[in-house]
Amino acid sequence: MTERIQRIKNHLLPPSTPTPTADDVRWFLMTERLQQCRLSPSPTAGTSFNKSDGMRPAGNGSNIGPQTENELRVDLAAAYRVVAHLGWDDGIQNHLTCKVPGTKNHFLINSYGMGFDEITASSLVKIDIDGNVVDPGSVAPAVNLAGFNIHGALHKVRHDAKCIMHTHEPHVAAMASMKCGFLPGLSHAMICGSEGVKIHKYAPTTGPGGEEECKLLATSLGDEARTLLLENHGVLTCGETVAEAFTRLWYITKAAEIQVRALATPDGVDAVKMMTNKMHLEQMNIGGNAFFSYVSNAEFAHHRRIIDRVNPGYNDL
Amino acid sequence: MTERIQRIKNHLLPPSTPTPTADDVRWFLMTERLQQCRLSPSPTAGTSFNKSDGMRPAGNGSNIGPQTENELRVDLAAAYRVVAHLGWDDGIQNHLTCKVPGTKNHFLINSYGMGFDEITASSLVKIDIDGNVVDPGSVAPAVNLAGFNIHGALHKVRHDAKCIMHTHEPHVAAMASMKCGFLPGLSHAMICGSEGVKIHKYAPTTGPGGEEECKLLATSLGDEARTLLLENHGVLTCGETVAEAFTRLWYITKAAEIQVRALATPDGVDAVKMMTNKMHLEQMNIGGNAFFSYVSNAEFAHHRRIIDRVNPGYNDL
Amino acid sequence: MTERIQRIKNHLLPPSTPTPTADDVRWFLMTERLQQCRLSPSPTAGTSFNKSDGMRPAGNGSNIGPQTENELRVDLAAAYRVVAHLGWDDGIQNHLTCKVPGTKNHFLINSYGMGFDEITASSLVKIDIDGNVVDPGSVAPAVNLAGFNIHGALHKVRHDAKCIMHTHEPHVAAMASMKCGFLPGLSHAMICGSEGVKIHKYAPTTGPGGEEECKLLATSLGDEARTLLLENHGVLTCGETVAEAFTRLWYITKAAEIQVRALATPDGVDAVKMMTNKMHLEQMNIGGNAFFSYVSNAEFAHHRRIIDRVNPGYNDL
Amino acid sequence: MTERIQRIKNHLLPPSTPTPTADDVRWFLMTERLQQCRLSPSPTAGTSFNKSDGMRPAGNGSNIGPQTENELRVDLAAAYRVVAHLGWDDGIQNHLTCKVPGTKNHFLINSYGMGFDEITASSLVKIDIDGNVVDPGSVAPAVNLAGFNIHGALHKVRHDAKCIMHTHEPHVAAMASMKCGFLPGLSHAMICGSEGVKIHKYAPTTGPGGEEECKLLATSLGDEARTLLLENHGVLTCGETVAEAFTRLWYITKAAEIQVRALATPDGVDAVKMMTNKMHLEQMNIGGNAFFSYVSNAEFAHHRRIIDRVNPGYNDL
Repeated sequence: MTERIQRIKNHLLPPSTPTPTADDVRWFLMTERLQQCRLSPSPTAGTSFNKSDGMRPAGNGSNIGPQTENELRVDLAAAYRVVAHLGWDDGIQNHLTCKVPGTKNHFLINSYGMGFDEITASSLVKIDIDGNVVDPGSVAPAVNLAGFNIHGALHKVRHDAKCIMHTHEPHVAAMASMKCGFLPGLSHAMICGSEGVKIHKYAPTTGPGGEEECKLLATSLGDEARTLLLENHGVLTCGETVAEAFTRLWYITKAAEIQVRALATPDGVDAVKMMTNKMHLEQMNIGGNAFFSYVSNAEFAHHRRIIDRVNPGYNDL
Repeated sequence: MTERIQRIKNHLLPPSTPTPTADDVRWFLMTERLQQCRLSPSPTAGTSFNKSDGMRPAGNGSNIGPQTENELRVDLAAAYRVVAHLGWDDGIQNHLTCKVPGTKNHFLINSYGMGFDEITASSLVKIDIDGNVVDPGSVAPAVNLAGFNIHGALHKVRHDAKCIMHTHEPHVAAMASMKCGFLPGLSHAMICGSEGVKIHKYAPTTGPGGEEECKLLATSLGDEARTLLLENHGVLTCGETVAEAFTRLWYITKAAEIQVRALATPDGVDAVKMMTNKMHLEQMNIGGNAFFSYVSNAEFAHHRRIIDRVNPGYNDL
Repeated sequence: MTERIQRIKNHLLPPSTPTPTADDVRWFLMTERLQQCRLSPSPTAGTSFNKSDGMRPAGNGSNIGPQTENELRVDLAAAYRVVAHLGWDDGIQNHLTCKVPGTKNHFLINSYGMGFDEITASSLVKIDIDGNVVDPGSVAPAVNLAGFNIHGALHKVRHDAKCIMHTHEPHVAAMASMKCGFLPGLSHAMICGSEGVKIHKYAPTTGPGGEEECKLLATSLGDEARTLLLENHGVLTCGETVAEAFTRLWYITKAAEIQVRALATPDGVDAVKMMTNKMHLEQMNIGGNAFFSYVSNAEFAHHRRIIDRVNPGYNDL
Repeated sequence: MTERIQRIKNHLLPPSTPTPTADDVRWFLMTERLQQCRLSPSPTAGTSFNKSDGMRPAGNGSNIGPQTENELRVDLAAAYRVVAHLGWDDGIQNHLTCKVPGTKNHFLINSYGMGFDEITASSLVKIDIDGNVVDPGSVAPAVNLAGFNIHGALHKVRHDAKCIMHTHEPHVAAMASMKCGFLPGLSHAMICGSEGVKIHKYAPTTGPGGEEECKLLATSLGDEARTLLLENHGVLTCGETVAEAFTRLWYITKAAEIQVRALATPDGVDAVKMMTNKMHLEQMNIGGNAFFSYVSNAEFAHHRRIIDRVNPGYNDL
């Protein structure tokens, strides 16, 4: 036994070669990214941290996103893989789209037929708001009409919504079908904010009436809200960046996971304690979009680092 | 620290050797497959995409499946592993079967005792509709009687159903046990279509009365529907291809996941908003089988690419 | 691009070296095992398979288990890892135990402090029914008193129960807490059989009254049943082999997963359709223990092959 | 075929080189740890095990934790990764903190912006109870204000709570929102003990009133309880060690998973059988903190060994 243990102990010694381990590399990637995005001065030993900045994760205190089409393609491709990794995708259906910077009418959409887990930056198809293919991408320029109709209708009128995400995750789809609707006084829901979440009575988005329906959908969202529940269907979130749209998707999906479980109690909405103090609710919603401006870049950067470990290869430009 | 970072940076440089990375290989496989199955002309930059084709993923706009027994064996073996990967299998129970092309009475079934995650093309047992072993396959020609009875009874009368899948996934089994039954006005359910889903009062399929029961089961399914819920038991789906039967299984299972969560609300069916507009429901169901003809090949091809990454080795011919 | 594709294609060619791939090895292991356990003649091409044998997976048509202590240690260690892989373990709590062949009072139990995912054949502690350590095992002879009390009390009186498993999986624990109890007319539940499942009003199994409580627990199980639900606690299953105890655990846990989901409907038990035809129920239960005799070896062998792939190293004798 | 099988068989022979396998290493790590922490004499063959010690896993019969800051950093970093592995983290939100040994006012907190899966011992930021950065750590000294407010308020008054954990896991968040509250008579819940779990009407912890709210939160917890449910929000657990705080988090989260499933029954609390015998409840709670003193070190050590396999690299000092 002693020999065997010694053999193993030897093996566990750090190798003398300078080859970095997988952990070295991970640590490096994480640190480098966290440092690169540092925008505001950070406290060092001996100083006290700024309490008004205390909600703000390291270096991500702004809502600034990628500036070039190529950067944006990489960010959006990463988002597709993040959503797949969380299990919130639905086969080859659903879409995440982005306006192309510096254009009025161009946006990027997945090549219809690829799974969310497979999307790469170069495979994204660039189309315009009238349905013309501007850049077919590297795989196949197939475009799903429902995706074009829904996302096009929103990109046409909501120019602040640089990125739009649409999913059918089962908890969100279930919440969107409940007559009680979205309960804004529960955890995570209150972060979304009752004003920030709208609901739309969904109808088919293709075929006769499809384009008209998508205009109604844009009307339901309105000028301010960035989350739209679609009855019997799913959810849409918007953001000024991929990171913001994703972080709003994270919060509404978590809110749905909690609401579905809380309503297991047989008296339903009456059996659930909700925050009703208006001042508190306003505080939790932290000034509408401010919370998401603070945290979105850091939230999304974390999920992207996970994808860098478990499903890399999306940044193929 | 600088040295360590430099060491890691060097390591992260793209290797000068021409060895393809795992990502290269994945990208290659994905692209090659997507291209191989391209059937209709795709738009290129400068053209507008055909809006009536816009529902159709790249190159999969037909319901054509494998043409030879060997191709079919590979497709069916892949489907077994896809269902296992989704966690919809039930130990060594349940069956996915296919009519053998060019025969009237032969079909392929799993060798009883192998898990869905283990099935290979060569291991499938070829039997005829009277219970004779035509080809014992490469592992063991054990056949489960319940599998033979159920699938045989359907293959005998539904010649359009080239592939039949049967599972006991817990959400579907739960939905099939609810007195409210399948709610056709919810998301995903409306894609299945109220006409496309039948229900059968399940009784034992082996022992005295077993063969008779399986005839009743075929009667419950009828001539048109391709999804059959089995009370207190599970679900059966049919398709002209493995891809179609799988895609129908995907939609009914997702419908069940959503229905179970939506009914968490205490007022049950009354508390759930359902689509009731008949025209809309017809549109969502997109002409019965047409939607599944459009998307099934592409949906299944995506799941098969996932299996190629996580559990390859099924195509052992 | 052409060069890159060629490079990848070359790489994908089957290697010329005779090194077996992981898939070769998996295929080999699977085949070899399926063949080794073949007990009854299998049909070959040209014969019809025996319909009365059709429920029986390849070569597992008997309930014969390991015959020596060493074989049993390996089987039991595998079962610990299977339960962990399914997520049905509860930290370091819960126990799976086996009578040692050829002894009256010795049984094997996990070394308290090891996780189910870590158990190895040699680490199992052999104790007797009076609490003496017969063989301390290779790691640490710590024994959990609750485990000794519960399993010892059953091993003392149920000599047919060579193996006993006890878990706290959340769906089973929830079902065991419902006033409606176990619903025997639902899928999977009817396989367990209403006669095969007993319920016990659980009380503490250690401290004052603990030994007495464990005797009551044995009384609740009685002489015939092999599954015991423990109110507010979990479940116990028994079998003549590790495979049988595991397969019963599989069925009662799946039954609980389905029952919890089916009861999402607000009218509860009244809203659930159950099989009530007595003849059908008897058929589904297939003669009490007969079904489990048929399938248990094959069910467990499949799960053990999964562990051989994802968490090997349990057979360290 | 014979050649192929022989080739594979050869390959399966144990290698003649003395290189330890992954299983060797795992076995070694596990054994070594279990041995190192052995505090009390263990029985050997021929002795009977001490029944009053029988609740106690090998060598973990005390609540002693790491003694130096460096040991504590490693333990806390491991706990972050354990919580992430269990899926109980919430993006970059939530915090696990520890008092620094030998100081009155210093505690360790995660660098805001890192995911729980990424935390390393060196990255933890050391702050004091007044919000000064004592040691910025190796990554970025960003501190989340809500984390500082909540954990600081508790560390100020509960000096026994060396470690505090706070999560928003959906089942716990749902349970904390139910009017019926935490049901102490269900499985796992009874281990937590009705006296050990308090509830607090949560309000915003930052902005105007935030500091005041955190004082109320400390008042709600009181002097004795070590678990605090936060209405519409989540849970806080405390412990004298990282291991104890984690083990309490494990039990309250499992209790929530069971309660949510048990309440699927439509008559809710009335439909759930709970243990009501006071003597039994007291026994299950095993003297308040005694149970957690017995098992916490061994429970946490097991989870840490899992992390050593699946996500190592946290111990970077």
